[in-house]
Amino acid sequence: MINAENPMLLGASHTVFAVTDAIQSSYPVGIFDSGVGGLTVVAAIRRAMPREKLLYLADVARQPYGTKSPRTVTRYAVQAAEFLVARGIKALVVACNTASAVALEAITARFPHLPVLGVVEAGAAAAALASVSGRIIVAATEGTCRSQAYERAIMRRRGDASVTCVACPLFVTLAEEGLTDGAIVESVARHYLDPLFSRANEGDCLVLGCTHFPLLAPALGRLAGPGVRLVDCAEATAILLAETLSGREALPDSQGGLTLISTDAPERFARIAGRLFPALGRDLAVELADL
Amino acid sequence: MINAENPMLLGASHTVFAVTDAIQSSYPVGIFDSGVGGLTVVAAIRRAMPREKLLYLADVARQPYGTKSPRTVTRYAVQAAEFLVARGIKALVVACNTASAVALEAITARFPHLPVLGVVEAGAAAAALASVSGRIIVAATEGTCRSQAYERAIMRRRGDASVTCVACPLFVTLAEEGLTDGAIVESVARHYLDPLFSRANEGDCLVLGCTHFPLLAPALGRLAGPGVRLVDCAEATAILLAETLSGREALPDSQGGLTLISTDAPERFARIAGRLFPALGRDLAVELADL
Repeated sequence: MINAENPMLLGASHTVFAVTDAIQSSYPVGIFDSGVGGLTVVAAIRRAMPREKLLYLADVARQPYGTKSPRTVTRYAVQAAEFLVARGIKALVVACNTASAVALEAITARFPHLPVLGVVEAGAAAAALASVSGRIIVAATEGTCRSQAYERAIMRRRGDASVTCVACPLFVTLAEEGLTDGAIVESVARHYLDPLFSRANEGDCLVLGCTHFPLLAPALGRLAGPGVRLVDCAEATAILLAETLSGREALPDSQGGLTLISTDAPERFARIAGRLFPALGRDLAVELADL
Repeated sequence: MINAENPMLLGASHTVFAVTDAIQSSYPVGIFDSGVGGLTVVAAIRRAMPREKLLYLADVARQPYGTKSPRTVTRYAVQAAEFLVARGIKALVVACNTASAVALEAITARFPHLPVLGVVEAGAAAAALASVSGRIIVAATEGTCRSQAYERAIMRRRGDASVTCVACPLFVTLAEEGLTDGAIVESVARHYLDPLFSRANEGDCLVLGCTHFPLLAPALGRLAGPGVRLVDCAEATAILLAETLSGREALPDSQGGLTLISTDAPERFARIAGRLFPALGRDLAVELADL
């Protein structure tokens, strides 16, 4: 295991060596999620920073994280971070709301000098800005809701806020099935969200607090109505990452590039990723890794 | 690890000892699934054989099995079987269709003298009997469909059959959410099954090929219509188990009993199990185990 606790000691080698900013610019950004959902973050980063190389790990063998205990999710997330750091990265994006909610401290403690960003902090920052009334609804997984991470992260930025987190596990399965709009999505969304938006002034901001949910954004936006601003954590994370990489961006001649790694069933991962994210290109190559 | 490859060598001890049929009668039946779904099998066994002690393992930490590769599912299933055998059991029920579909041979090879039953074989046997036309629809997880285990198991019993397997992953999430009937369930069921039942004579038998699906049976039965017989693998498994235990049934004075073990988040497991299966009683105690 390389010593990645020193900011300048990154790389897939046991040799400890110093890396200058110029060399570090050429390293990829590491991103991980439990499955395909985090590719919404990849898509947002590629739109904002097309020259960055991206290294994406999907811990498919152990998904979903959303229903697992904080202890288990933290163990998995630290292992995923260790794997990416060993490959050599200049920053780490935790593109899984559940892992961001419960494991960000543990990852930062393990790699104190590596820039680590979580989608929860990014989404909370965007929501605190977007809401006028301060009444904010967060749609998330059960694990994220139970952790109360959004509540804490939003309240740190805006003490007058009132945050309601609602667990929407069916949204994950719908998105993975490619059912992103239509009658089924609408009836499921009404089931979860109608009680929150039917009361007057109940919320003016809906945070898509799971990386799968931006895929359902058009349907959720229609249901929430024009008075409600949707916060896409993937977009918010890309903006924060651009800030974080300042001075270590990819060089102007970089072509970017995306490497996909899955901890199980890489063909299935490639098939679903290609269907949900056609912009990633056809015939995606996905490596298999054992954590 | 005890030597459980000998039929009379069961028990959670390193001492190898012979167990007579009379003593073996007092051992529990081991049952495992990746989550709460297998409790439909537990419920069916308790209705049919209330005196049997049952030991149920839910591999919640690594669920769902339905989307994982055969190699991974087999590894998990053999570990689950080893765990139950080490606790001492007289028979093993694989109450997970995905594991039954891909891992039954590996489990039988590991414990060649332990009676091992899988829900797929039981469901296939029942479907082969229930269908008149031989046109059989199987609703299952993606992993079960891809394995073609139902097709093989039905064709072995009935060469004239025509089997169509349809992956219905949203049914699992619906059942776990407690959404077992109503408008959402109907629209999802129509999405998956209408193409199969709208054509004339397309099927006269619907196999509920995932242990979660019996929870949706009333809604699925209405949708399929009166000309279609529903096959509940949980019921079929209980019937086969009664046959298998012949001569080693629990003694007449046995009070039965159910021990629940989860590999993660036991409180959550107890909460969902209690909500979905009120007949199991209130305030379920669930042990935590690390496989």
